Amino acid sequence: MTTTVVEDLCDALPQGRVLLDPDSLAPYSRDQAPWAVNGRPRCVVRPRTAEEVQLVVRACLRHRTPIVPRGAGTGLTGGANAVDGCVVLSTEQMTAIKEIDTSERLAVVEPGVVNDDLRAACAERGLWYPPDPASAPWSTLGGNVATNAGGLCCVKYGVTRDYVLGLQIVTGTGELARIGRRTAKGVAGYDLTGLLVGSEGTLGIVTEVTIRLRPARDPERTVAGYFPSLAAAGRAVAAVSAAGLTPSALELIDRQSLVAVDEWKNMGLSAEADAVLLGRTDAPGLAGEQEAEALLACFTEAGATWAAASSDDKEAEALFSARKLAHPALERLGQVLAEDVCVPRGAVPDMLARIEEIARDRRVRIATVAHAGDGNLHPAFVVPAGDDETRRRAEIAFEEILDAAIALGGTVTGEHGIGLLKRAGLGRELPGPALAMHTAIKQALDPHGLLNPGKVIPCAPQS
Amino acid sequence: MTTTVVEDLCDALPQGRVLLDPDSLAPYSRDQAPWAVNGRPRCVVRPRTAEEVQLVVRACLRHRTPIVPRGAGTGLTGGANAVDGCVVLSTEQMTAIKEIDTSERLAVVEPGVVNDDLRAACAERGLWYPPDPASAPWSTLGGNVATNAGGLCCVKYGVTRDYVLGLQIVTGTGELARIGRRTAKGVAGYDLTGLLVGSEGTLGIVTEVTIRLRPARDPERTVAGYFPSLAAAGRAVAAVSAAGLTPSALELIDRQSLVAVDEWKNMGLSAEADAVLLGRTDAPGLAGEQEAEALLACFTEAGATWAAASSDDKEAEALFSARKLAHPALERLGQVLAEDVCVPRGAVPDMLARIEEIARDRRVRIATVAHAGDGNLHPAFVVPAGDDETRRRAEIAFEEILDAAIALGGTVTGEHGIGLLKRAGLGRELPGPALAMHTAIKQALDPHGLLNPGKVIPCAPQS
Repeated sequence: MTTTVVEDLCDALPQGRVLLDPDSLAPYSRDQAPWAVNGRPRCVVRPRTAEEVQLVVRACLRHRTPIVPRGAGTGLTGGANAVDGCVVLSTEQMTAIKEIDTSERLAVVEPGVVNDDLRAACAERGLWYPPDPASAPWSTLGGNVATNAGGLCCVKYGVTRDYVLGLQIVTGTGELARIGRRTAKGVAGYDLTGLLVGSEGTLGIVTEVTIRLRPARDPERTVAGYFPSLAAAGRAVAAVSAAGLTPSALELIDRQSLVAVDEWKNMGLSAEADAVLLGRTDAPGLAGEQEAEALLACFTEAGATWAAASSDDKEAEALFSARKLAHPALERLGQVLAEDVCVPRGAVPDMLARIEEIARDRRVRIATVAHAGDGNLHPAFVVPAGDDETRRRAEIAFEEILDAAIALGGTVTGEHGIGLLKRAGLGRELPGPALAMHTAIKQALDPHGLLNPGKVIPCAPQS
Repeated sequence: MTTTVVEDLCDALPQGRVLLDPDSLAPYSRDQAPWAVNGRPRCVVRPRTAEEVQLVVRACLRHRTPIVPRGAGTGLTGGANAVDGCVVLSTEQMTAIKEIDTSERLAVVEPGVVNDDLRAACAERGLWYPPDPASAPWSTLGGNVATNAGGLCCVKYGVTRDYVLGLQIVTGTGELARIGRRTAKGVAGYDLTGLLVGSEGTLGIVTEVTIRLRPARDPERTVAGYFPSLAAAGRAVAAVSAAGLTPSALELIDRQSLVAVDEWKNMGLSAEADAVLLGRTDAPGLAGEQEAEALLACFTEAGATWAAASSDDKEAEALFSARKLAHPALERLGQVLAEDVCVPRGAVPDMLARIEEIARDRRVRIATVAHAGDGNLHPAFVVPAGDDETRRRAEIAFEEILDAAIALGGTVTGEHGIGLLKRAGLGRELPGPALAMHTAIKQALDPHGLLNPGKVIPCAPQS
């Protein structure tokens, strides 16, 4: 072959689509996962249509060049990190909301649409797109689909996969394929759509997403409680489940996170409690009042030292602000790596205790917030900049936390994905036959191994 | 090889597991789909454990003998029909509910557990398993998983796939594999569980199902309406969606079905209406009253000649009885083949009109009930026994209805699956690249092509 892949891309695409300048490439070479390695891309392409994405994939197929697809780069596991010599395919210029159909309650969007932008466009039409990852102001639907993003409200409303009806993708063999459907139900063939969601760009590149929407929901009420121990907060979470309640959020903030917020904002939280629980309900009208009262009773009976229900938006937002401040408060103290294990709800107190033990044993600072109602915990490691010795201990603690989650019947990732950082953990979580199924599917759909190679499964299909 | 597969099975399994007598085999050789062809099985095996299922698959792998897995045989597309010389694997003796965990809201069951039995066991513990196919009194969880079964309440609560957290399966290479999870959330690797659900036994044989449950819900209220035309009923369905309501059921019965019920039960329904709509709401307390009133208003404003809301269980059940009687009423008139297309909600009136046209053009009797809120229609062909000429016209009409659904942006199957009867329709619905992905996945997970061969996709992988 006499041309290079870059020459082919420049030939095939309109001007301006291909970035080559090293300074331009740097911001496209990794996501927001500290510790994850990244290589140097050969170039970055920013296609504007599905057909342009297909041209990119076909050029890369001809040259056997790896492709690393990328949304906003807000991932936390290195899933969008470049490998040496790859083409980074950024969807940032595919930002059209093509359709919002009120009566069918669906939207069709390009992958570069930002989560909050879709949410706002839906709200104008009395509709609601529930998945609300913390990255919603920046992260894109394509990225959300790639990682099967979750968020606060998935405890009641499910995750991204629950809202994706269909996809248009470019396959590992360079075909433009429509999978899934526009109808409310459908069982025509295998659930390829669900398979692609959460596959982190390793099985196909998403060029369009058809999304199921819900009607706008009722305003939420918030219930907050201060607990003298993690065990007491855990009892409250278990009581909520046992009472048959379905809160629209149920969040936990541990002492280390409260201390970090206090050190920054001086809110006095850590003096009051070892753990804070924040519940929400969006049940309509009187049922919402009753559910808030029932949540409050669960908190109080589990031993909350203070608990209150509120339907005042400002007060509710103030109560949730500590939750939102936890991560930036930690970032003031050093590099933060957010973990993401998920255990059975009832095992949350045990998991929190194990995290405390591991932090003590390995002498690392770990602060935890959790989607407690889902059993999804985000222990965050804080490592002072440049402190390599602490970082090494933190890396050991990281793997120990994964093992602890597996031992409690949980999983190494609740919503962030595998990327690079959790491949070893995935190998320990999945039994051999399930891993073999992963490898078989990867080879079937990406026979040349060019789609985001090295991510998710540690397999290297032959080209 | 000196032994036969039957000898190997008899050797490997405890006594009584293998049926060989031709009279015993006959009832295991097909499901409830008229028109679908079936072959003669070599034998039927009724394993009692996952390990026994694995022994069966391994024996069949050694002898390259096809395996047709089977639940209760209530399928409507020939998905469980035997092929000549196959081993039919019935899960009827794997009926243990292994676990119901109230605080984690999950159940672990063997595949032969009957849907209604699980539902009853859950209800005793204040829990609820929503998917409610019409076959629920007989059909098994394994069969429900294989077809991704739906039902009445999926308009609000989703289908089987939405409730399957994890599976234990025997793979196409004879491995016993655990896939999925027990936690509320999890993104560790590809969604193999979702892929297996709805794969109709072609990608693996389910030996255990881990199921997500909901808390028991509030009692339902029913709203019924008589409509002078299908168009008026269609307007009511669209109005319900536009009003942001989420009924827990929204069913339609067309004139032909009403006539059939009248001919049998003399309820006088068809004199009153061209179509009946039945809505339900399970919103709690006052919100339920308000939603019932809002449904009633949608019905009335769309032109209902009579409509009423009821929270009286007996009256509500009486109103739903016509829906339930439609199928047996038709069966009095001949062989009934239930179709199962799904179109965008707004296209329901157009689809109903197309069905009437096709029935008229092809001179066949078609009566339709529909999960109208989902756009999922069940036109039922009624062919007098032995009337081969009508049956041939009905077979043409069957394909025309599939094409009409595709043309309206719909799918050839909303909840019954592909089996044998809809393979041609699936080929017309799915574009080439999506079909190629199906074939690639089938070959990857069932490399010898022995798992329910010839079902779903018309591919024949080499052994």
